[in-house]
Amino acid sequence: MSKKKKKRSLEPLLFASPDSEGNMQWFTRFHACDPFLAFGCEGKRIGLTHILEYGRMKKEGRFNIVELITDVQDEISSGKKRKKKGKKSKKSKRPEMAAIIGHLQKKYKIDGFKVGRNFPAGLLLELKAAKVHVEVVKGKLFPERAVKTRAEIKMLTDANTSAAAGHAAVRRILRASEIGRGGVLKYEGKTVTSESLRHAVNIACLEKGGVNNLTCIVAPGDQAVDCHCVGSGPIKANELIVVDIFPRIAATGYYGDMTRTYLKGKASPEQRKLYNTVKKGHAMAIAAVKAGISNRAPYKVVTDYFEEQGYETDREKGTGFFHGLGHGVGYDIHEAPNLGSRKGDKLQSGNVITIEPGLYYPGLGGVRVEDVVVVTARGCNLISKSPYSFQIP
Amino acid sequence: MSKKKKKRSLEPLLFASPDSEGNMQWFTRFHACDPFLAFGCEGKRIGLTHILEYGRMKKEGRFNIVELITDVQDEISSGKKRKKKGKKSKKSKRPEMAAIIGHLQKKYKIDGFKVGRNFPAGLLLELKAAKVHVEVVKGKLFPERAVKTRAEIKMLTDANTSAAAGHAAVRRILRASEIGRGGVLKYEGKTVTSESLRHAVNIACLEKGGVNNLTCIVAPGDQAVDCHCVGSGPIKANELIVVDIFPRIAATGYYGDMTRTYLKGKASPEQRKLYNTVKKGHAMAIAAVKAGISNRAPYKVVTDYFEEQGYETDREKGTGFFHGLGHGVGYDIHEAPNLGSRKGDKLQSGNVITIEPGLYYPGLGGVRVEDVVVVTARGCNLISKSPYSFQIP
Repeated sequence: MSKKKKKRSLEPLLFASPDSEGNMQWFTRFHACDPFLAFGCEGKRIGLTHILEYGRMKKEGRFNIVELITDVQDEISSGKKRKKKGKKSKKSKRPEMAAIIGHLQKKYKIDGFKVGRNFPAGLLLELKAAKVHVEVVKGKLFPERAVKTRAEIKMLTDANTSAAAGHAAVRRILRASEIGRGGVLKYEGKTVTSESLRHAVNIACLEKGGVNNLTCIVAPGDQAVDCHCVGSGPIKANELIVVDIFPRIAATGYYGDMTRTYLKGKASPEQRKLYNTVKKGHAMAIAAVKAGISNRAPYKVVTDYFEEQGYETDREKGTGFFHGLGHGVGYDIHEAPNLGSRKGDKLQSGNVITIEPGLYYPGLGGVRVEDVVVVTARGCNLISKSPYSFQIP
Repeated sequence: MSKKKKKRSLEPLLFASPDSEGNMQWFTRFHACDPFLAFGCEGKRIGLTHILEYGRMKKEGRFNIVELITDVQDEISSGKKRKKKGKKSKKSKRPEMAAIIGHLQKKYKIDGFKVGRNFPAGLLLELKAAKVHVEVVKGKLFPERAVKTRAEIKMLTDANTSAAAGHAAVRRILRASEIGRGGVLKYEGKTVTSESLRHAVNIACLEKGGVNNLTCIVAPGDQAVDCHCVGSGPIKANELIVVDIFPRIAATGYYGDMTRTYLKGKASPEQRKLYNTVKKGHAMAIAAVKAGISNRAPYKVVTDYFEEQGYETDREKGTGFFHGLGHGVGYDIHEAPNLGSRKGDKLQSGNVITIEPGLYYPGLGGVRVEDVVVVTARGCNLISKSPYSFQIP
């Protein structure tokens, strides 16, 4: 027999709530607001839970085996009893999670576990103390998540349909609005605000099954320059309004993500040029995307074009095109791959990514146009469908 | 000078997205979907971010200081340059997060950091490798979170007002429904389902600023026995319907949590007795709550009463009263203190907790009644207000 140390085969281990950890959702396809344990074993997915979730976990989710905590604790205790026959311990404390995981490792003959960067530090230290072999992976725990299946693309399309419904609601209100005193928009006798538009978006997304668990952006004028500012206050005519909607479909957990920039009234030549430049950059980026290219290539196409058009970027001040071009979208609103200035993986067929160039200048406001595309061998396919209305009379 | 080792004074360190980590939300009062770094320093709260969130972080949130990542990276690089004068390193890699935290520790003269159990394991190991002193706390990182301020109680009351609006919508539909073929409810010509009621709840909660980012429960008949089952399919007359609504107010991040059990038509004596028993247990628990008592005392009052009434609990089968009596609610839907069979802290004035006894039996269905109360020195005050309608004609 060879003395060479066999490389451990590591199985994924997760302890998280699927509602706040995309990896858990992807691995289990199960919804729960409290954290629980799941791990792999030769392609099988095993979950561990208490009685409150046990029945649901067996019915819903994609577990091959569901273990009940109390059963596992009994297994551990009976194993110990066998070892110390006759000796009755006074304190029969129930085994804690690290001991449970150690037991399950032996039970399923698992060499060791690998965990993601976000694995809870407290449990990691307890596992190390309990001599359970655990390694924190350097990159992604499930890099394969970045390539979506056909079923996932369908769910992501539905999520963008929900986002599109939100945009339709905004356009409908802007179109029906009148321009009141001081240029403030009025709809059905009331002042149109970021908040009132956001409310209309929330309702419209819900009609298509999408929940805006993250607050959508309706940012008028200079508010949009702070590009994650959600926006507040009255909306005025003749100002740029960035509307970025990213609902999550409650039934599936997948996010949509779609941005349009509107202007009620009449755009100035500067506003129009800004919009047209971003829209052209958006189209150029989409034309540049295909499997096999660098994650930085479409970004470079856009930055070059913006510079050529005279739009400078100052990352320190946060003006111009100072954010990334896009990101993967799935169970997390921001996931792999990243399309920006940092080097990452090459684009692959089945990546589902946003393309969202933007330009922002105080005094002028912001423009961002965003769609979601599926990367293919030859290019990419748009999965978000919503008109590119800009100026709304 | 004494040679005795001075005990390190540890400052809290967090790296998380506030949207998925209540501690971060509580510490910073800031909303962001991506994770960022925050830490304490002698009562000050310091945030670290990139340009995308910088302006917003300074305006929103409750930071005393906001550091820009690139500035800190420059500080580190210029410090290094001073050390290695003349030597120009070819690879001028930007410092990573662990090095940044190490630098900030020195800059702010911090002895060491303490982190919560959920701190990301990957970053913890990197900090240890970078010789940054970090300890994972045994209990809660911010145990003081369990005692709410008056401002927080106001926000939690608002969140329950949103939940109450959801219940009002359900009652309105049930009242207006007709009993169709096979006992299935019809409302405005359409079959009433868990899904249609949930949709009405979502809309009604939104009208009060609440987003059901976690799917609310509308579980008819035996579906409610799986007490986290969200429910699906047609609603029939004469069956118990557990409706548990826990919206989060988008503007503040605080959760509401309120359960009622309804029945359209006429309850059987068994259903009525089950309801009355749970309702009585709910009232007894509320009467038992006050500051200074054990977290298990109100639970015991309820379990004793249920047993006395002949309702047995089988935790292994998941029948009877097999879940806890309640939990703290705040930025997390489930937070400290816990009211159940496990020993925990004594109740304190200012705890905001749910009181939610329930009984579940296959064939009969489930009943749960839940309200949120604020613990006081003398007892507790209800902050959720919604009628205890049961049978709806």
